[in-house]
Amino acid sequence: MEFSVEQIATILSGTVEGDAELMVNTFGKIQTADEGELSFLANDKYEQYLYTSNATAIIVSNDLVLTKPIKPALIRVSDPYASFSTLLEFYEKAQQSQKTGIEEPSFIHENSSLGDECYVGAFAYIGDGCKIGNNVKIYPHAYIGENCTVADNSIIYSGAKLYEGTKVGSSCIIHSGAVLGSDGFGWAPQDDGSYKAIPQMGYVELEDNVSIGANTTIDCATFPNSATQVKEGAKIDNLIMLAHNVVIGKHTVIAAQTGVSGSTEIGDNCILAGQVGVVGHLEIANKTTVGAQSGVSKSIKKEGETVFGYPAYDIKGYLSSYAVFKKLPEIYRRLSKLEKKS
Amino acid sequence: MEFSVEQIATILSGTVEGDAELMVNTFGKIQTADEGELSFLANDKYEQYLYTSNATAIIVSNDLVLTKPIKPALIRVSDPYASFSTLLEFYEKAQQSQKTGIEEPSFIHENSSLGDECYVGAFAYIGDGCKIGNNVKIYPHAYIGENCTVADNSIIYSGAKLYEGTKVGSSCIIHSGAVLGSDGFGWAPQDDGSYKAIPQMGYVELEDNVSIGANTTIDCATFPNSATQVKEGAKIDNLIMLAHNVVIGKHTVIAAQTGVSGSTEIGDNCILAGQVGVVGHLEIANKTTVGAQSGVSKSIKKEGETVFGYPAYDIKGYLSSYAVFKKLPEIYRRLSKLEKKS
Amino acid sequence: MEFSVEQIATILSGTVEGDAELMVNTFGKIQTADEGELSFLANDKYEQYLYTSNATAIIVSNDLVLTKPIKPALIRVSDPYASFSTLLEFYEKAQQSQKTGIEEPSFIHENSSLGDECYVGAFAYIGDGCKIGNNVKIYPHAYIGENCTVADNSIIYSGAKLYEGTKVGSSCIIHSGAVLGSDGFGWAPQDDGSYKAIPQMGYVELEDNVSIGANTTIDCATFPNSATQVKEGAKIDNLIMLAHNVVIGKHTVIAAQTGVSGSTEIGDNCILAGQVGVVGHLEIANKTTVGAQSGVSKSIKKEGETVFGYPAYDIKGYLSSYAVFKKLPEIYRRLSKLEKKS
Repeated sequence: MEFSVEQIATILSGTVEGDAELMVNTFGKIQTADEGELSFLANDKYEQYLYTSNATAIIVSNDLVLTKPIKPALIRVSDPYASFSTLLEFYEKAQQSQKTGIEEPSFIHENSSLGDECYVGAFAYIGDGCKIGNNVKIYPHAYIGENCTVADNSIIYSGAKLYEGTKVGSSCIIHSGAVLGSDGFGWAPQDDGSYKAIPQMGYVELEDNVSIGANTTIDCATFPNSATQVKEGAKIDNLIMLAHNVVIGKHTVIAAQTGVSGSTEIGDNCILAGQVGVVGHLEIANKTTVGAQSGVSKSIKKEGETVFGYPAYDIKGYLSSYAVFKKLPEIYRRLSKLEKKS
Repeated sequence: MEFSVEQIATILSGTVEGDAELMVNTFGKIQTADEGELSFLANDKYEQYLYTSNATAIIVSNDLVLTKPIKPALIRVSDPYASFSTLLEFYEKAQQSQKTGIEEPSFIHENSSLGDECYVGAFAYIGDGCKIGNNVKIYPHAYIGENCTVADNSIIYSGAKLYEGTKVGSSCIIHSGAVLGSDGFGWAPQDDGSYKAIPQMGYVELEDNVSIGANTTIDCATFPNSATQVKEGAKIDNLIMLAHNVVIGKHTVIAAQTGVSGSTEIGDNCILAGQVGVVGHLEIANKTTVGAQSGVSKSIKKEGETVFGYPAYDIKGYLSSYAVFKKLPEIYRRLSKLEKKS
Repeated sequence: MEFSVEQIATILSGTVEGDAELMVNTFGKIQTADEGELSFLANDKYEQYLYTSNATAIIVSNDLVLTKPIKPALIRVSDPYASFSTLLEFYEKAQQSQKTGIEEPSFIHENSSLGDECYVGAFAYIGDGCKIGNNVKIYPHAYIGENCTVADNSIIYSGAKLYEGTKVGSSCIIHSGAVLGSDGFGWAPQDDGSYKAIPQMGYVELEDNVSIGANTTIDCATFPNSATQVKEGAKIDNLIMLAHNVVIGKHTVIAAQTGVSGSTEIGDNCILAGQVGVVGHLEIANKTTVGAQSGVSKSIKKEGETVFGYPAYDIKGYLSSYAVFKKLPEIYRRLSKLEKKS
């Protein structure tokens, strides 16, 4: 597939600077893109490469002011990142092989139903009493336990595991190795120092348009007929732990290796960076941002806060204290000196 | 199944306040429970909901003093959490479908033996020379490598992986995606900057009543005939890393995403919270508690300590220093002002 | 297999102190080794055990000065750890059962090719258009998506997952549950607060001699024809997250549960300890060492630095500040006292 710079500008409602008739046939990073390739500039850190790039064309912001002459044609748009993403999607759809049909050997229980245009890979397992919607893709080695439901257009990649009773909304993506519905970690201490399991009898529910990353684990809720929930449009990255009874709000984004302890409720439109830990039984307000590796130990009631640190509090406070932390040995010496003087 | 409040109080050796003849048929959280539902109050944080709850009955502590009138019947017991757990267990046993038999296609090597009343799911794999006890459940896509043993009543969920030579005690639970016996991370640096693998020739051993969470990894020991060990009754949550030669003591509980480096021995009855890291070659005394996200860099010799921080030391010390850390910019200004004065 | 102390010294080019004709038949830890067992001493922490050990022979450093009489024979070498490792390797090769052949049922697409002397376990899946080299071992439940290549002598353990287009070099090891090529975590925020997926169209590439630990996840690159890369000889432990477009340099070693955010490039011969987090879009110089649990938030330009802390800076600075941090309550009191005086 080859497109002219003009054609691409038209798709993106952008304007061309330079030769609109040049042709591009693939994508490349601005640092390394070569002739025939289309690139984009969305992050100021990479502006230096603009002036040395061999790309045929580059998508840039309407606001960009050039400081030197450049070789590539420019396509100016309001949001280069979003525009580039639109193009990639277009390209992907054109390329995608649409898998359908049932590969053998696979295991589909006779009491389970499968919609139209589904793909079931070899060695996939669908237990008793499941309802699988239309256009669902279930890759090899995926495990769907008893009485699960998976709504239309969802994709369950190879080796993802859904314990009994899991509910998956429409247009969800569950990546390889993700585990939904394993037992919550609830142990009642006994007098002799041993522990007795608190039965974990709930399930996991993903609303529509949820994405779950590779090897992420979401434990089932404790109570029967009760769910650990990830709401509409939330995006959960790889290797994340969501403990029993947790609720993740709509359009909340959580980066890799973060853990949320039991019964905590995270609001809508929050952003949790990577390796964050959140203590159990908290409520986190909508639009909260938590910096990477932070430990959240208290509920956050006001919307729109950004917290950081261990334990976490407001990020500006943490960083100004940390700047002084670096001078602590000096401060200690100065204090001792003052004491001697006084 | 429906029970009267009276019947439940009898099971729990509790006393009823209110109408003992009311009937309940399921469980609910105190915040949301409705008519016909039974709930419990074990955490003071939720006491406010007691006065607005629509539950038919609530299990509470003998010590609870009511501050307002309430609608639900109360069942008073000495430990509401333990009582509730007993009920759930009762309910679960009643509901549970007892899986037995062998689904096809599965792979069971002819040199391996299987006890009575086992379940082997489709696509499960049992290699050469394995001994599987009675009433063991091996779910679809579980992998049991050569020469493994799994004792009576253990459950291996879908997609759990046991490398060659793994030993699993009785009544253990291994959740989906857990990996036991992968190579320890041992690399001998070479003169040219590359690394040569130190062969990892031991195995993993779980004693009885051990629970391993989803996607947790436990590496094999380095030495032949030597084990990375999780002792009797220890409970290991999801996404945890136990490195080669680690020993976890009896009835020790480790929360999600914690990592223990090579050759460290954790004592009995310890509690490690989530996202903790423990350096290699340490010894941690019995009954040690480690706060969430802490980094333990030294052995702990005295029993019963609670540590916190990065690196970790006694939790009271850390938290009082952290309280002052928040004032560091102010302290810096005050110190500079004093210096000018002096 | 039984060897004399003399024979072992010959293999290792070492010298014997004590009875060279004693026989050993297995290995043991210095703390617990018994008669007939060979042990080694590489870490000063264990020197105390030398004088009480019942091992028949112990490999020690040429430099070791004995402070008391000892019972075992000694084999003196320049590097006891490396020597011991050589022996283990020797022993392992002798013991190893060389798996070859194809177990049924497995799924190998007709358009894919397999080299000589391969092993394909039952329930393994090899998709359309794959090229598998000679002497490759693919264990049960491994998933190799479309158009993947795996070069000679590589091992893919049970349940590892390779998404479409993954390239694996020669002599690589991929442990159970590792996921290579899942979608990068790229989401374009929309005006209504929801997110739209940025298509992730690249792949994952491992060069030769790379090792990937159990349940580690490596996301595919964003751009078509572009790779998230792990270069020659790098060793990646368990439960690690490498995000889209990351590059890991040659012979770099990364310990468990570390995460590297998108588009960051880690240099050659670096060491990242466990539970480290690295922010996206950074460049880390060759030979950088990062202490455990550190958060790296800025590029590191100078080679050979060791950093630590949250956020990370030079380790000596952090630790001297942390020593003073522990005295902060005292400092605060002393400052207030001085102020009253002045």
